[in-house]
Amino acid sequence: MITPELLWSHVETVRAKAPLVHSITNLVVMNLNANALLALGASPIMAHEPEELPDLMAIASALVLNIGTLDKAWIGSMKVAAREAYKRAVPLVIDPVGAGASRLRTETALALIAEGQPAVIRANASELLALAGGAVNTKGVDSTHTATQARDAARSLALEFRCTVVASGETDLVTNGRETWHLGGGSALMPRITGMGCTCSAIVGAFAAVADPLDAAAAGMAIMKVAAELAAGKASGPGSMQVHFLDALYSLSRADFLGHVKLTRA
Amino acid sequence: MITPELLWSHVETVRAKAPLVHSITNLVVMNLNANALLALGASPIMAHEPEELPDLMAIASALVLNIGTLDKAWIGSMKVAAREAYKRAVPLVIDPVGAGASRLRTETALALIAEGQPAVIRANASELLALAGGAVNTKGVDSTHTATQARDAARSLALEFRCTVVASGETDLVTNGRETWHLGGGSALMPRITGMGCTCSAIVGAFAAVADPLDAAAAGMAIMKVAAELAAGKASGPGSMQVHFLDALYSLSRADFLGHVKLTRA
Amino acid sequence: MITPELLWSHVETVRAKAPLVHSITNLVVMNLNANALLALGASPIMAHEPEELPDLMAIASALVLNIGTLDKAWIGSMKVAAREAYKRAVPLVIDPVGAGASRLRTETALALIAEGQPAVIRANASELLALAGGAVNTKGVDSTHTATQARDAARSLALEFRCTVVASGETDLVTNGRETWHLGGGSALMPRITGMGCTCSAIVGAFAAVADPLDAAAAGMAIMKVAAELAAGKASGPGSMQVHFLDALYSLSRADFLGHVKLTRA
Repeated sequence: MITPELLWSHVETVRAKAPLVHSITNLVVMNLNANALLALGASPIMAHEPEELPDLMAIASALVLNIGTLDKAWIGSMKVAAREAYKRAVPLVIDPVGAGASRLRTETALALIAEGQPAVIRANASELLALAGGAVNTKGVDSTHTATQARDAARSLALEFRCTVVASGETDLVTNGRETWHLGGGSALMPRITGMGCTCSAIVGAFAAVADPLDAAAAGMAIMKVAAELAAGKASGPGSMQVHFLDALYSLSRADFLGHVKLTRA
Repeated sequence: MITPELLWSHVETVRAKAPLVHSITNLVVMNLNANALLALGASPIMAHEPEELPDLMAIASALVLNIGTLDKAWIGSMKVAAREAYKRAVPLVIDPVGAGASRLRTETALALIAEGQPAVIRANASELLALAGGAVNTKGVDSTHTATQARDAARSLALEFRCTVVASGETDLVTNGRETWHLGGGSALMPRITGMGCTCSAIVGAFAAVADPLDAAAAGMAIMKVAAELAAGKASGPGSMQVHFLDALYSLSRADFLGHVKLTRA
Repeated sequence: MITPELLWSHVETVRAKAPLVHSITNLVVMNLNANALLALGASPIMAHEPEELPDLMAIASALVLNIGTLDKAWIGSMKVAAREAYKRAVPLVIDPVGAGASRLRTETALALIAEGQPAVIRANASELLALAGGAVNTKGVDSTHTATQARDAARSLALEFRCTVVASGETDLVTNGRETWHLGGGSALMPRITGMGCTCSAIVGAFAAVADPLDAAAAGMAIMKVAAELAAGKASGPGSMQVHFLDALYSLSRADFLGHVKLTRA
């Protein structure tokens, strides 16, 4: 049973252990994702040269793969990383950015899932529908579907791939196929900052290093929603929003978290 | 006839339509450019793998190519994107960063112009002089010439390539070779933030999706100048300048725009 | 003899001359490093295509090589840049990010040092111990050793490679093997911002363009510590810290610098 108190205990564990989170992610969000992991209390590393990935997977506590700016060389790196992580039981989070927008993205995401057997897949509704093989009408990397529309896709993907699936949106949905949770709150300014979805995946990666996949996904999405809500209260636009968001992630107290988290079972 | 009211109407169109702007741009500015496009109300996507570019050009409303951190592989991607955009009549903006600083940059910029027949070329004075074949004495990626010195180069390039040319500087010059406009204002802090020139090109790309090239270039440069001027009034240096700039781009009102835009016909 | 007044004079020289600092650095920190160089008053350029590096080294005042997100292609670029810089006596700063975390990183850093004969090597304690061939137990890219533990490694590397070595940490150590200086101060928020170590290397690069290596290293580390200390006084977390840091670097006065710098001879 997931409770706000349990999720907060995972935040404290991340802060205490500072797990090493290895990301191979897109070029647009690298800086924000590294800063968000540091603000949370985790230790980020980003590296993609296949030759050194075995050395680096040997010290990683979690792996996050994000295909946002994929190319043939980086797809190769991600496959090596997925394989090495699997061998070492390093928990894997996959963010299939833009699945559905090109055939290459859909296929790459599915190949990485097959190769790495992820603990968590985090995506928006359109991306999940694309992975589930449905007819999708995407607009680039932004979702044109609601989380509710994606609920069935999320549940069936979770059962098919034996993992936790997050469908992020105005309300986030977290499911392992049998048990489904919603996280509300957040802020309408979140989608006005590039890579906030990718940052959710990175943050979930930090929790996957210290908790089981369903807990990790719920904890990651919960702290993102709470930090965004607190930041939005001080922000004048997306520029100051990003600044306050990192500050909130860093300084968040137990009382702030428990006072703002909106967790409900579906 | 370009008027401040007309330019503002284009801002409202971008906000209403949220055009999908595809960029293949340099590694330094990707995050800022995506955030600026989101703050403006457009929808950014960045992707460079040739295999998926046909899929992505089919949904793009504009393409922005920026050679700031070019290499052989990315030049190949940019050429594919330019060709696919041309086939589909997707308007193209080219930013020839550092043209003149190396032979490769000048040649690549000219090759992309030939391949893609851009709607708009946005550059600083030194870069335009390099494209025009003049003797240039550049210092890296920063201009050592004034916009006034570049006026003749801008006009002749506009006529030669049948496009709109922007020579950005303390005063921006926008010309299609027959009609030339100046945009004043802005802030001396702009060149102290990396990639503000590149951001101009990205923003012009958003307008090129909804307006003809001369209008789009004027609207893009105008909103950059106005947002920078408003941000500078609140900034204590280049760090806070960037934050306030994104906030201003997001929250800019009609009255702010019309009260600050400095548009004159040359 | 290094004095605070001497270090400040180097700041004024950088501001007056705006040296062109060429970086081939990691994908995570490019934007911050370029912004820090601009805030300081230097002129940054980032480019990695081997074909244009001879043209660009001909106009560069300093070169900074950082292996944070190395791959085979970029290692090739860094070697070409190191060789071209050496031929033209362009001072070189090397940041061996993650040396010790993988064999490839340690070997690449040593190869670049051999190729380029750097003026300055800036690293954390773990990285220096790895370069010195000691048994190292690293955790990704963050140091698990103190600057004090690294003192012997720093001195012996400085003598072996005839260069200045910086071991950054809570107190920074700057040594040419015969003369050693400490810089205190700074802020505990610095390691909570990604790439602050890399930014030190970039800033040292700007000073290496105008001063001898020992001076340059001391001046760079000194201004980083002072700007961080001033920024921390205004910051609420790592998000606002980064904003205030750039503002402080830009607006720092002689009185601020002399009033806060903590320079002592070892």
